[in-house]
Amino acid sequence: MPTPTPDAPAARPAGPVTLQQVAERAGVSSATASRALHGSNGTRIVGEELRRRVLDAARELRYVSNAPAQALARSTTTVVGVVVHDVADPYFAAIAAGAMGVAREHGLLVMLAATFRDPELELDYLARLRAQRARAVVLAGSGFADRDFTRRLATEVDAYRADGGHVVAVGAHGIDSDTVRPANRAGAALAVRHLYELGHRRFGIVSGPRALTSVRDRLDGARRQLRSLGVMLPPAHVVDGGFTREEARAATRALMARAPEPTAIVVLNDVMAAGVLGALRDDLGLRVPDQVSVVGFDDLPFAADLNPPLTTIRLPLADIGARAMDMILTGPTIEARTIDLDAELVIRASTATSRR
Amino acid sequence: MPTPTPDAPAARPAGPVTLQQVAERAGVSSATASRALHGSNGTRIVGEELRRRVLDAARELRYVSNAPAQALARSTTTVVGVVVHDVADPYFAAIAAGAMGVAREHGLLVMLAATFRDPELELDYLARLRAQRARAVVLAGSGFADRDFTRRLATEVDAYRADGGHVVAVGAHGIDSDTVRPANRAGAALAVRHLYELGHRRFGIVSGPRALTSVRDRLDGARRQLRSLGVMLPPAHVVDGGFTREEARAATRALMARAPEPTAIVVLNDVMAAGVLGALRDDLGLRVPDQVSVVGFDDLPFAADLNPPLTTIRLPLADIGARAMDMILTGPTIEARTIDLDAELVIRASTATSRR
Repeated sequence: MPTPTPDAPAARPAGPVTLQQVAERAGVSSATASRALHGSNGTRIVGEELRRRVLDAARELRYVSNAPAQALARSTTTVVGVVVHDVADPYFAAIAAGAMGVAREHGLLVMLAATFRDPELELDYLARLRAQRARAVVLAGSGFADRDFTRRLATEVDAYRADGGHVVAVGAHGIDSDTVRPANRAGAALAVRHLYELGHRRFGIVSGPRALTSVRDRLDGARRQLRSLGVMLPPAHVVDGGFTREEARAATRALMARAPEPTAIVVLNDVMAAGVLGALRDDLGLRVPDQVSVVGFDDLPFAADLNPPLTTIRLPLADIGARAMDMILTGPTIEARTIDLDAELVIRASTATSRR
Repeated sequence: MPTPTPDAPAARPAGPVTLQQVAERAGVSSATASRALHGSNGTRIVGEELRRRVLDAARELRYVSNAPAQALARSTTTVVGVVVHDVADPYFAAIAAGAMGVAREHGLLVMLAATFRDPELELDYLARLRAQRARAVVLAGSGFADRDFTRRLATEVDAYRADGGHVVAVGAHGIDSDTVRPANRAGAALAVRHLYELGHRRFGIVSGPRALTSVRDRLDGARRQLRSLGVMLPPAHVVDGGFTREEARAATRALMARAPEPTAIVVLNDVMAAGVLGALRDDLGLRVPDQVSVVGFDDLPFAADLNPPLTTIRLPLADIGARAMDMILTGPTIEARTIDLDAELVIRASTATSRR
């Protein structure tokens, strides 16, 4: 039940409280009230006693500054957009949480938008965040490997910039912007090398949607490493797990029916790795790592709790989000910057020496 | 690299494109351009040929309508705020994804904000979403069991409403608003009954932060059910796992040192259950479910992948988010509405007949 404060309800007029009403209550001019509440380019030019009086009046009236009006005036707001593919995917949740942590420290409000891996929705969101005068956008979803789309995205990003906004990309989006780049290629190579050093020579890969640049980079990194080690990877040994647990489960059953049967599986994210382990254990009755070794990708929080605990490639996800937000805080520079973040092999219990 | 469209860059003036510029290019008045682009109360009152001409001009100039200006005029926007505690917690990610799915279908942009379980930040976000003229807010984080805070929240919600906004709560927030209510009490009672029917009489509970109303409700539901079954629960057998995996792991070691040693543990969310299983298996060398049975709460996506697969209480998380967004789409009603959503017991492999 709402329990109003003792003094406010009677004193508070109906409808949004205006700056003028705050000024009247504090007994100052609107200009003074505005300076006391909003400062002027960050500097306070109102005496402390006056400022206190205005703040008290604003609090009593529950005044909130009119952000759309201010946005019109300043063409910038304290809102930052973060565009991801899917908030229910813990990979994006971890990146978003990293970005939000930094945003919180600096008083920025994050508008998190999910595209459900629909490129059109990504363009739509970018246009709408521009309309909202969001001061910056982090494109945290993976890029789409499509030339026509990339051209339209670049045009939209240019328009955003022309309006004074700032776009920071996570991963390869094919646009000329500040970028935080996770080590997708190097990470996949690490996974392959680890399995090779354990004696594995028959590999399978459970891939994600090829339309995503992150998937292409991971796949490319794994393939190049295999080639440089002289290991054959028949095309049929790369199956698509759709970046979901259930599709990966079905894809694993198909993969293990191929000849020669793989003894090592590189899975291009941990969400799918949960499905791969389930398929091997429950559908195929194979023991991991005794009969098949599995390496995941990302090191999501649940990776250590899988059965067996998953050997995986750790990306610094919270750091990816945080560094992207850092770039927004420092503002755009003349030359676009790139921050490269390393991947790391985390060895747990899903990989062992090859017996075959 | 940005590849501009062939015609747009030369034609496009610097800075934000105004409606006036679109009108000039289309050879119509600003009023006609506005009606063509925005309609008038949803009805189009411009002929199809004129409308097409304006839309073409807007596309060529990459015009985006100025949302803050429109928000000022209409005091409403297509933005809906969703406030959660932590996006990296899959419980909130699942609720947010449900809400975003419905928002997407209706062309609404979701501004997802995380409070990091800080009540002050919840009030701050509510005020800022009001300042942004977000048309509605879903308070999806659990309520805080604090009278002073609840009073201030109610005041802020009233102010939001007075400005024409709409607030929908998920769970018990102590405010008079539309509410989607998960079956926290009934769910916890289900967990207890399941374990009781398996013969367990010595219970332990791994709880979360008591400041949250969801935790209090789950705890209360479990306690009442135990009492009505005539089972004693010594206060020392309720330990705080802080809603995190690591704290729950430490709390479980403390719990299992109590006399009498519990044979059944009710864990008030699945994130903590991962830590509880880890502690029992790796720190204490106890077999689940042979020596100790464990029931979780929420049925997060990874619950089936834990070792052993977790018996848990399923809350329809995506549905919780979707129903809250449905209430926003239908708009506020005179009497606040409440939607109750059931919990369900999902039996997997972490519970078995008590041997002791």
